[in-house]
Amino acid sequence: MKTRILIILLAFASQITSAQLLSKDQEMEQKIDQILSQLTLKEKVAMCHAQSKFSSPGVPRLGIPEIWMSDGPHGVRGEINWDNWGYAGWTNDSITAFPALTALAATFNPELAHEYGVAIGEEARYRRKDILLGPGVNIYRTPLNGRNFEYMGEDPYLASKMVVPYIHGVQENGVSACVKHYALNNQEEWRGHIDVHVDDRTLHEIYLPAFKAAVEEGGVWSLMGAYNKYNGQHATTNKVLMNDILKGDWDFDGVVVSDWGSAHDTDESALYGLDIEMGSWTNGLTASKDFAYNDYYLADAFYEKLKSGEIDESVVNDKVRRILRLMFRTTMSDNRPLGRMNNQEHHDVARKIATEGIVLLKNDNNFFPINPNEKLTIAVIGENATKSMTVGGGSSELKAQYEISPLEGIQKRYPNATILYSMGYSSGPSAYGRVIPPKEDQDSLQQAAIETAKKADIVLFVGGLNKNHHQDCEGGDRLSYDLPYNQDALLDGIIAANPNVGVILVSGNAVAMPWLNKVKGLMQAWYLGSDAGYALADVISGDVNPSGKLPFSFPVKLEDNAAHSFGELSYPGDSINQYYKEGILVGYRWFDTKKIKPQFPFGFGLSYTTFEYSDLKTNKTEYAKDDSITVSFTLKNTGKVAGAETAQLYVSDPKCSVMRPAKELKGFDKVLLQAGESKEVSITVPVSCFAFYSEEGKNWVVEPGDFVLQVNSSSADNKLKQKIKVE
Amino acid sequence: MKTRILIILLAFASQITSAQLLSKDQEMEQKIDQILSQLTLKEKVAMCHAQSKFSSPGVPRLGIPEIWMSDGPHGVRGEINWDNWGYAGWTNDSITAFPALTALAATFNPELAHEYGVAIGEEARYRRKDILLGPGVNIYRTPLNGRNFEYMGEDPYLASKMVVPYIHGVQENGVSACVKHYALNNQEEWRGHIDVHVDDRTLHEIYLPAFKAAVEEGGVWSLMGAYNKYNGQHATTNKVLMNDILKGDWDFDGVVVSDWGSAHDTDESALYGLDIEMGSWTNGLTASKDFAYNDYYLADAFYEKLKSGEIDESVVNDKVRRILRLMFRTTMSDNRPLGRMNNQEHHDVARKIATEGIVLLKNDNNFFPINPNEKLTIAVIGENATKSMTVGGGSSELKAQYEISPLEGIQKRYPNATILYSMGYSSGPSAYGRVIPPKEDQDSLQQAAIETAKKADIVLFVGGLNKNHHQDCEGGDRLSYDLPYNQDALLDGIIAANPNVGVILVSGNAVAMPWLNKVKGLMQAWYLGSDAGYALADVISGDVNPSGKLPFSFPVKLEDNAAHSFGELSYPGDSINQYYKEGILVGYRWFDTKKIKPQFPFGFGLSYTTFEYSDLKTNKTEYAKDDSITVSFTLKNTGKVAGAETAQLYVSDPKCSVMRPAKELKGFDKVLLQAGESKEVSITVPVSCFAFYSEEGKNWVVEPGDFVLQVNSSSADNKLKQKIKVE
Repeated sequence: MKTRILIILLAFASQITSAQLLSKDQEMEQKIDQILSQLTLKEKVAMCHAQSKFSSPGVPRLGIPEIWMSDGPHGVRGEINWDNWGYAGWTNDSITAFPALTALAATFNPELAHEYGVAIGEEARYRRKDILLGPGVNIYRTPLNGRNFEYMGEDPYLASKMVVPYIHGVQENGVSACVKHYALNNQEEWRGHIDVHVDDRTLHEIYLPAFKAAVEEGGVWSLMGAYNKYNGQHATTNKVLMNDILKGDWDFDGVVVSDWGSAHDTDESALYGLDIEMGSWTNGLTASKDFAYNDYYLADAFYEKLKSGEIDESVVNDKVRRILRLMFRTTMSDNRPLGRMNNQEHHDVARKIATEGIVLLKNDNNFFPINPNEKLTIAVIGENATKSMTVGGGSSELKAQYEISPLEGIQKRYPNATILYSMGYSSGPSAYGRVIPPKEDQDSLQQAAIETAKKADIVLFVGGLNKNHHQDCEGGDRLSYDLPYNQDALLDGIIAANPNVGVILVSGNAVAMPWLNKVKGLMQAWYLGSDAGYALADVISGDVNPSGKLPFSFPVKLEDNAAHSFGELSYPGDSINQYYKEGILVGYRWFDTKKIKPQFPFGFGLSYTTFEYSDLKTNKTEYAKDDSITVSFTLKNTGKVAGAETAQLYVSDPKCSVMRPAKELKGFDKVLLQAGESKEVSITVPVSCFAFYSEEGKNWVVEPGDFVLQVNSSSADNKLKQKIKVE
Repeated sequence: MKTRILIILLAFASQITSAQLLSKDQEMEQKIDQILSQLTLKEKVAMCHAQSKFSSPGVPRLGIPEIWMSDGPHGVRGEINWDNWGYAGWTNDSITAFPALTALAATFNPELAHEYGVAIGEEARYRRKDILLGPGVNIYRTPLNGRNFEYMGEDPYLASKMVVPYIHGVQENGVSACVKHYALNNQEEWRGHIDVHVDDRTLHEIYLPAFKAAVEEGGVWSLMGAYNKYNGQHATTNKVLMNDILKGDWDFDGVVVSDWGSAHDTDESALYGLDIEMGSWTNGLTASKDFAYNDYYLADAFYEKLKSGEIDESVVNDKVRRILRLMFRTTMSDNRPLGRMNNQEHHDVARKIATEGIVLLKNDNNFFPINPNEKLTIAVIGENATKSMTVGGGSSELKAQYEISPLEGIQKRYPNATILYSMGYSSGPSAYGRVIPPKEDQDSLQQAAIETAKKADIVLFVGGLNKNHHQDCEGGDRLSYDLPYNQDALLDGIIAANPNVGVILVSGNAVAMPWLNKVKGLMQAWYLGSDAGYALADVISGDVNPSGKLPFSFPVKLEDNAAHSFGELSYPGDSINQYYKEGILVGYRWFDTKKIKPQFPFGFGLSYTTFEYSDLKTNKTEYAKDDSITVSFTLKNTGKVAGAETAQLYVSDPKCSVMRPAKELKGFDKVLLQAGESKEVSITVPVSCFAFYSEEGKNWVVEPGDFVLQVNSSSADNKLKQKIKVE
């Protein structure tokens, strides 16, 4: 005992002096050097691959801890068995379910993204996780992508602004965020092998900016490689994506984790940037081989190549250095908080994000809010009024401590009303099953719903998609842009029986709305987590004035969407290759430029009040390339209730040597205004954000000339406009 | 490792300032007050019982962590499923198996106990455990107790001296030791309900001192209650043991954990000292009810009584205060090292303890050591030469990273010899099964062994007990004092074929030795953990000179043992009651006082060298009651090799108002001497250690008069003696 303390103290004394001279980072790198010098080759290689479904080993003999990971991004997933995908049956893993990232994006509120990150990070820490596998920032390219609900919409600027504070929040807890899925994993169909072909400009302008922000501004400590290929090489082990861009241009000093099974080759895994290989089944997906971790590409095969010198030891040293760096930031950090879970503050954050994320899309004659004091009969119709949306969906599935359904939320908020409920349609028995009830049952459900609708003053139809396979769910894409389970016909029947219908769309994707003109109100309600029903009732009742804006465009029909305009080779590809033929014209860039009217545009969302935009000014009229531009304008709440408006700054470059989209989002500000209040709002952006990515120069270029700045309430309107000049 | 050191030091630095104003303990108690004031009654009650087989909940919403426990005491047990006793199938839980605590006790080396504690504590910490369920200090009362191997022998002074540094070592890692099983769990037969009747003096002089030392000197942070009853009340919830003695007289400020299922009543659990209830099956041992944690006595039923006021809230507050205190010392500690596992240092410690624990009991004509340079033919005979002893045995079972068998150890150390192996006997197919092979098979094994013996220069018989049910194993006692599986007859046959036989006894208990006079050598080899075979070969070869001493007496026959001298009511009882009729005369106290010659006495152990004791002196001849006595003597190595000798100080009180044992161990010192070297050795003991426990006064009394001090090589010899007077 005595000896041990003495050794420690002597070592301390010698460290104080060095700590005075060295920065914390330098100190960490020195410690890593020392550890590296003590590791055997076997130990180094062991750190580069999984030891179980969700952990990778440390070095027991030196006290280097294991790394424990958990799916995110909407909550910390239930405990999984060591060697198979079954749930472990623990009872300490019920958590707060946070709203899906689409809902977060719809808030247009980076502060909420930070609160989200802090809260989910605290839960991950309490659950003893070192890496939270999220957030996801793949760009919304098609409404059929089964996993869009996990991402932050179609605009790289919006996703960048939201992902950075989320990461900061998570990592304040000594838990690594893991931004995913890098890159171009924009559909689930054939995700394991589809080879994405995209031009450099589109890659850099559309698909990479949110990842770049995560790295450069978010300082994210880990990143997950994607399943798909890019230009013939799997994304997770892709020289261009990993070596040249991520670890080269962006100087990423963290850990690249594979998606579960996204590595396919030892040389590529070793040389092209993968650091920890997870989830591989290298000898075929058989139960007996599923846990042969030594067969992983970065396991025995990697070891042999290192031992023989075929791969230089510096390769594994770099990986282990990154892994140790992550450990010093997380599990070996000396000031790591303890985390917490299921506390009221987390529920409050989840509910706040949920209410701010709900988007009011249509509100004829002030259909919403519905007064809770009136003695109304309200018919709530639709399976999504009661269906759990935290169960299913793939790896983002959660074991929520509780989940308030829309029906329950409405019942609680409307004690004076008579609430009738009718299921209306059924998605079938199993979350993952494809079986839906027989036609006779559907007819019977529909008839019952129509009868219920007849008895009510107001119908609230709560439908949309769900977390079943081929809906909003990992591992497959939607098979149709239409609402499933015959909801369109059901809605027609309901409207015929009672025209006073408001629709609550629970989904993570846009859907076709042939009934839109016939309903009075429409809310986009996303997947809202633990307090879903309460949040919905907050907005329906007017307790909270809706302020969400769409983070992606809703096309009228699928063919109006850019990716779908170019046929099957563009989406979903021919099973081997896929070509992003629309290039940079993704989302509103396509609709605007091609002058196609969407059903609802990006950035759109109504309020229970109205706003007036006026007096646009810029601080100058001519700018140098390294200037910043401050745009000011007056925003006034012209209605009768307080409300928040997200004013959006779009930029156009009317004359340019390359094609530019009609406009692009470059700034936004969410402003809360009391009834009648007005504020002068300023948004400052650097001139450099006007740049396009030059394919020739492989750099970002701002061409001198005129640029048009627009301040809008959505991507499709035209509130204020001003021209400026860049020299 | 620098990381670890830095973490420790940074934490030190931050504490210096606050420590200037408040003591660290005061600060902790203030924090606990603050937390207590925030807890709901439900949260408090939840902390008082298990949530799974080996964890109890924290308070997620406040970031109060869970407590994770693991069986000890010889290594950190493999991961167990959440809700059943199956192993979880993890692959990160193979550990260093340390020698059984009987082997540790046999070293008579408290420094090794500390090294043991540090090492096992580091492994527990690396495995993310907060409480290590050990060490065990129940007194060796009968050689039939199936769990003696987990304890530290028959003498309360020896057990006290060894348990304290073990605890210190574990707890230096921010891991709580959990001393067990408090108290009087001295047999496995009917352990769940047998009601032990023992007089107060015996309780305090024999069965409690090691627990008292663990609390008062070891500062142990948790303690496990026993299964059995004491004076009509279950030990785990026993007013006298828990409230009056442990938390009263001894001022224990830690947590009482039940043994798994040792609580039986809500009122008793609440009021008589239990803090965390683990492992209960309150509605019958059915699979479906086995995980009904809300049915635990300190769960819903406790909550209801607190809510109704039948039990005062101060009762649960005291429990939660203790639990939080343990958390601040462990999982919420701000200077907790990271631990490590399976490192060479741990293997070295395990091997060192193993070699020092081996006791040479007989060595005719220097049978041992066996020269590894000679071209001998050595017949190794006996199942224990190859049988794993880390598997089986009950809750102390381990998943050792490796386990070197005696045969393997001998083979490695004797490359020049021809090693023959013959199984000789078989214990049957299953560790827990009672099936042993048919007589024909046994005969065939025996015949083969005898043939093997005939071919050899030397026979090493490696037999003894094992970890099967009814051997050295939790949950049952041995059915006989004899060696099992017909080993006595086998040995007779072997000796007849080849008289040059040395016996290696692998066991945690004494056994009958009808063959003793006919064998040349005998070693008591215990259960030695990961490096068992290497340690054994170290001693057999003479690389290490044996220095172990028996921590308990070996009677010739069972009836010579004190507990067994008084018939079935003394052992095992009538299934309801049991009376410790031998009182304080346990172990050598019995043999000495009753002048019964044991086969081998307590404290006995030979060496490859010889020692001479001379020149006993005391610093004075008359002492006051609060004096200390320093005894000095010269110890000389009179042989040809270096060796260590444990000199033992025994005290007699020839005239006393109450019966005293012939002598009692009150000090020892293990001294390493080179060949020919002599040293003056000093042992200092307080006069107060001469006290007996007065039944009348309920206090410890030293009566004035003469006391005789003896310095011996074992409890049965008579090297040096001196009389002193106490005024």
